[in-house]
Amino acid sequence: MENFQYYAPTKVVFGKGTEDQTGQLVAEQGCRKVLVHYGSGSVVRSGLLERIGRSLDEAGIAYVSLGGVVPNPRLSLVYEGIELCKKEKVDLILAVGGGSVIDSAKAIGYGVANGGDVWDFYEKKRKAEGCLPIGVVLTIAAAGSEMSDSSVITNEDGWLKRGYSSNYARAKFAVMDPDITMTLPKYQTASGCVDIMMHTMERYFNRSDNMEMTDGISEHLIRTVMKNAKILMRKPDDYNARAEVMWAASLSHNGLTGCGTDGGDWASHQLEHELGGMFDVAHGAGIAAVWGSWARYVIDARAERFAQFAVNVMGVTPEGTDMETGMKGIEAMEEFFRALDMPVSIRDMGIELREEQMRELAEKCSHFGKRTIGCIRKLDKEDMYRIYKNARG
Amino acid sequence: MENFQYYAPTKVVFGKGTEDQTGQLVAEQGCRKVLVHYGSGSVVRSGLLERIGRSLDEAGIAYVSLGGVVPNPRLSLVYEGIELCKKEKVDLILAVGGGSVIDSAKAIGYGVANGGDVWDFYEKKRKAEGCLPIGVVLTIAAAGSEMSDSSVITNEDGWLKRGYSSNYARAKFAVMDPDITMTLPKYQTASGCVDIMMHTMERYFNRSDNMEMTDGISEHLIRTVMKNAKILMRKPDDYNARAEVMWAASLSHNGLTGCGTDGGDWASHQLEHELGGMFDVAHGAGIAAVWGSWARYVIDARAERFAQFAVNVMGVTPEGTDMETGMKGIEAMEEFFRALDMPVSIRDMGIELREEQMRELAEKCSHFGKRTIGCIRKLDKEDMYRIYKNARG
Repeated sequence: MENFQYYAPTKVVFGKGTEDQTGQLVAEQGCRKVLVHYGSGSVVRSGLLERIGRSLDEAGIAYVSLGGVVPNPRLSLVYEGIELCKKEKVDLILAVGGGSVIDSAKAIGYGVANGGDVWDFYEKKRKAEGCLPIGVVLTIAAAGSEMSDSSVITNEDGWLKRGYSSNYARAKFAVMDPDITMTLPKYQTASGCVDIMMHTMERYFNRSDNMEMTDGISEHLIRTVMKNAKILMRKPDDYNARAEVMWAASLSHNGLTGCGTDGGDWASHQLEHELGGMFDVAHGAGIAAVWGSWARYVIDARAERFAQFAVNVMGVTPEGTDMETGMKGIEAMEEFFRALDMPVSIRDMGIELREEQMRELAEKCSHFGKRTIGCIRKLDKEDMYRIYKNARG
Repeated sequence: MENFQYYAPTKVVFGKGTEDQTGQLVAEQGCRKVLVHYGSGSVVRSGLLERIGRSLDEAGIAYVSLGGVVPNPRLSLVYEGIELCKKEKVDLILAVGGGSVIDSAKAIGYGVANGGDVWDFYEKKRKAEGCLPIGVVLTIAAAGSEMSDSSVITNEDGWLKRGYSSNYARAKFAVMDPDITMTLPKYQTASGCVDIMMHTMERYFNRSDNMEMTDGISEHLIRTVMKNAKILMRKPDDYNARAEVMWAASLSHNGLTGCGTDGGDWASHQLEHELGGMFDVAHGAGIAAVWGSWARYVIDARAERFAQFAVNVMGVTPEGTDMETGMKGIEAMEEFFRALDMPVSIRDMGIELREEQMRELAEKCSHFGKRTIGCIRKLDKEDMYRIYKNARG
């Protein structure tokens, strides 16, 4: 078992009608002027922004707004948000949305608190020494960014997708009302569920002598998301299923499922990040498309872990070698993805990858040959190319 | 599923040698003068206090010390600590110990930050509006006070044991090195394990339409503690088993296992608190002694939950009615207690309860007839008396 740190200071306020507490939660932070940051007009049309505005008004909190965040959130809007916050003397950024909006809010927070070019942090040229306080009203259960330390931003100049993590950006509070997620389309719900599962699976596939406490939580979390994702495909307005998935999303990425491990593999995430940067695919769907290819490429390096996953998570009856049992687990997971209408190849997303595109993805994912990814097996540029190729379909 | 709040802001620094980071963790809080609060001389003899002192010195942190905390920590020492902190202008209290030391530190923290008589909070006469920052170096896996919001203090004037909970007292950081717990005697280890299990069991036995995510974590946590407690009876210096138990202790009482529930029953804890106030028994042992009596007294009010517990935690094969399955689960838990040399009756602790003592315990536990306890079944003074009587043995 590895030494570890666990730090998840976000105050979670979970359940029906909790968005009406937003103003009071901002006031508790001692803040007075908020940037309400959001994505598309859906939060306007649903009346959510209006309710939040009312809650802020009642608590005597002033605010300005900045919408327009897109999936794979853009650096240009981050720059705009930083200028707006400075001009308006904003002291808390309220992200009303899912992972993209929260990640964009974190980037704005870094920019305001540290000065200089915020992209430096994502390029690992500097370390942040603070972040404007972040609050969240969550509208999509997926990224877990509401409790995580991470933020992923896409720089349109070269379409580079890069992440930066620090405890400074952990949200002060997160309002989670499952009712808000009831109207999400099936594809977004399914893609979110894959993303949630993957945050735990990335940690689960590691090279550590693991902690039972953590393994059991992880295995239960993945099973719970799978079960409730299937319910939501049939019954998208099932409150309890929405709530299970929403809470699992936060627990899956707040660090809990990595305690006592080396941190996990994360290669599937890195491989998807480049796909997302190039094609603007939904993050969860993109991971589903590459995961099987990754898993088959690395399984022999830790077959016993894949076998444990197959038995404890996928319900496979162990038979033959760990390799054989593990392979059955991979197949079962792909079957589950299909049941959710998720892709199991890049072609399934309607993308016909050309040879030079696969080379370009591998170039970018390896930071032009300067890094390897993964821990189950360390993957270099050539490995990445092969995994993309096997995932092409 | 119930609406809930989850707030566990403590930074956990877990693993071998982590106590050497204590000074740096204090400095991170922006604090300069520490009260090192501890219990018996064992932390002196083991050299732990010296190591911590060195770490504080290296970080440029000044400190004063106050030892002498006993199990069921006393109000008189809390008063002494408050005066010392004021006189020495202490800005962080470092609890080096287990639940008793941490609870005492929290009480001192309330006293310094709020003024007036600190006992008022425990008598529910006032609400705290702050607490001096608390840091922890944990030496016993049991109470979970290192991440919890609660503190239990015994007032020698009448031997009243009372709890007070607020987020202000949640520790800023908790250093957890399983190596430190290696030398704990068997009885304390076993009693600690029961305490850990009970913090989740109290929440598990509730009247809610439960959350699957929470139920699975709870069931896994209890099973993990049971398995590793048995290992520690044979092999007290098994690092991994110590680590599993230590981490489970924190997760069991930081709120995680109550998410989505009504908060749970807690009657067994209340019943034990009075026993502990009267006889100074080890907390976990005291709960083991009354739990079976409580469970049999209330099972008919929620037999289906006891049946779920029996099957999912105790591995009972369901047969007959929920009552029958549930009763088998209670018996299996008592069998487990016995395997740990824990009491399953008050007599097992060497206490021959007299009739008037049982009446007095029920008087005190019901706050002289002014409150009921429990939620599975609301228990009044007469119920409490009967549960003590059935637990007498």
